[in-house]
Amino acid sequence: MKTSVALGERKIIELIQSQLELMPNMPVPFGDDVSACDLGNGNLVILKTDMLVDKTDVPPQMSLWQAARKAVVMNASDFAAKGVKPLAILVSLGLPASMTKKEIVDIGAGLNAGAKEYGAFILGGDTNEASDVVVSLSVFGTARREELMLRSGANVGDVVAVTGLFGKTSAGLKILINGLKAPKGIRGALVDSILTPHARLDEGLALSHSGAVTASIDSSDGLAWSLHELAKASNVGFLINNLPISKETAKFAEINKLDSVGLTLYGGEEYELVLAIEPRSWDRAKKAVRDAGGKLRQIGKTIPEKKLVLEVKGRRTPIEPRGWEHFSKR
Amino acid sequence: MKTSVALGERKIIELIQSQLELMPNMPVPFGDDVSACDLGNGNLVILKTDMLVDKTDVPPQMSLWQAARKAVVMNASDFAAKGVKPLAILVSLGLPASMTKKEIVDIGAGLNAGAKEYGAFILGGDTNEASDVVVSLSVFGTARREELMLRSGANVGDVVAVTGLFGKTSAGLKILINGLKAPKGIRGALVDSILTPHARLDEGLALSHSGAVTASIDSSDGLAWSLHELAKASNVGFLINNLPISKETAKFAEINKLDSVGLTLYGGEEYELVLAIEPRSWDRAKKAVRDAGGKLRQIGKTIPEKKLVLEVKGRRTPIEPRGWEHFSKR
Repeated sequence: MKTSVALGERKIIELIQSQLELMPNMPVPFGDDVSACDLGNGNLVILKTDMLVDKTDVPPQMSLWQAARKAVVMNASDFAAKGVKPLAILVSLGLPASMTKKEIVDIGAGLNAGAKEYGAFILGGDTNEASDVVVSLSVFGTARREELMLRSGANVGDVVAVTGLFGKTSAGLKILINGLKAPKGIRGALVDSILTPHARLDEGLALSHSGAVTASIDSSDGLAWSLHELAKASNVGFLINNLPISKETAKFAEINKLDSVGLTLYGGEEYELVLAIEPRSWDRAKKAVRDAGGKLRQIGKTIPEKKLVLEVKGRRTPIEPRGWEHFSKR
Repeated sequence: MKTSVALGERKIIELIQSQLELMPNMPVPFGDDVSACDLGNGNLVILKTDMLVDKTDVPPQMSLWQAARKAVVMNASDFAAKGVKPLAILVSLGLPASMTKKEIVDIGAGLNAGAKEYGAFILGGDTNEASDVVVSLSVFGTARREELMLRSGANVGDVVAVTGLFGKTSAGLKILINGLKAPKGIRGALVDSILTPHARLDEGLALSHSGAVTASIDSSDGLAWSLHELAKASNVGFLINNLPISKETAKFAEINKLDSVGLTLYGGEEYELVLAIEPRSWDRAKKAVRDAGGKLRQIGKTIPEKKLVLEVKGRRTPIEPRGWEHFSKR
């Protein structure tokens, strides 16, 4: 019998799903970044749960304050990708019996800091004894049905765009976990990308209001995986000809003789938005993100062939459907 | 420095809370059975999260199907106590790497069975690798502000009532964990109270509609503890003169030379409702619960002195503020 390590997270979710009776007329399909419930007249309640477990999600150098804050960022990023403001958060904690008063206070302070950053409040929760530190958050918000940015909806010819550069978290993890070296000038940025990530909430809300987006996902499972999920949900393919490699990642790859393309595509724990945008609305989308304090970058376009292709200097290679996955043999 | 075992669950929650900035005008105070957010015009969104951890919440004889179903019951019971129908559920799972396909399917089926029993649907969730089996649920519903039954609101002279008899879970745990004996005729009921608990959702909804209830809590932390919480939130005391000891508990106590009053008061993992009811609305409340298929029992009355007193055959003793608590030294 296969174990959960052998099955992998996505197969586990499929197995659970196979046992569930679905709610009729779900406004957001199972498997999108958030869930939703229709209150009538197109008024939706948006719900999301995401769990952080120290054993798999927290490198040893990350403080409990940072871990608790990161749990909020993870959830806020999913809201950002759908263009919805998080309003309220519930917290369910699993705590080892040996945890100290100071450590518990640090978790509370980290949760509050994260909530405050994204304009939400923590309304309640519960605590339990567990072997790991478990921070399970549930986030709630409201949205109009027509403003919600789903994973499905990209059309052939759409611009494929992202809200930032990639690869820093792959490099940061190699520094924190594998002890790889990086010069002073870039080390801080690479490590910070892991310890204090940020969700693109302002950008996501601005994009939703712009009406320019046809499909959207957050990149927490890595750029390649997110592109595959977006393509699959929209029933299209992507040609990526302007890979968003961060300059720190390129430098880190050069020094450590690593493949910068691989670091950029197959990372994870990154909280950018990956989007498909109507070509005629591109300028509007770009302005909306700029006004929100961010930067939208075109990285490719939507194609009718159901495949993901990377083009670098005229040479085309496939983008593989892999990335960060719990339970997988890494 | 005190550890979480020494601090206890309630002190941990206080510590976390001390770090949080509260949402202005919360319709339900921090620490009630559920949380709520006001959507305007008295329309509330009701939210609840509760986590089940196999290590502390699941006796060895409980199957994964039963554990997953119980996670739903725990949350449904809090909704029942507030008089709110649960609509949708999100699931966050922590699973050990050694878990098999069959075990994962059992968890999915147990979750679905629980959701179906209470008329709710599972909308989504996530899975993570963890050392324990962790089932963290978030439940969502809607309510009118005036229909919500809070912990605060009991007045002096109110009837104190419960929806069932107590003590079976204390006895059931002593059978399952400590190997105590019980004759065939009662063993099934005692063990079932632990393995397949039921939430009083129909009763809670009926009571909310009756308008007769002034304060309400579920008894998942034990009868004594729930009475103390209700009294504290309402700023009153209770005189309990008709302790709801189940006949199985009385029999079990007799056979094993245990104190049936202690088993009844200081248990936990029981999912009855504990209520304060206006005396002039007592008959209406009783009928509402009967029509919903249950039975309401008067166990005492509200008194102005801020204490909890048990009266048995004219003899008065204090009811202590203790019960089931995670992290406490048992």
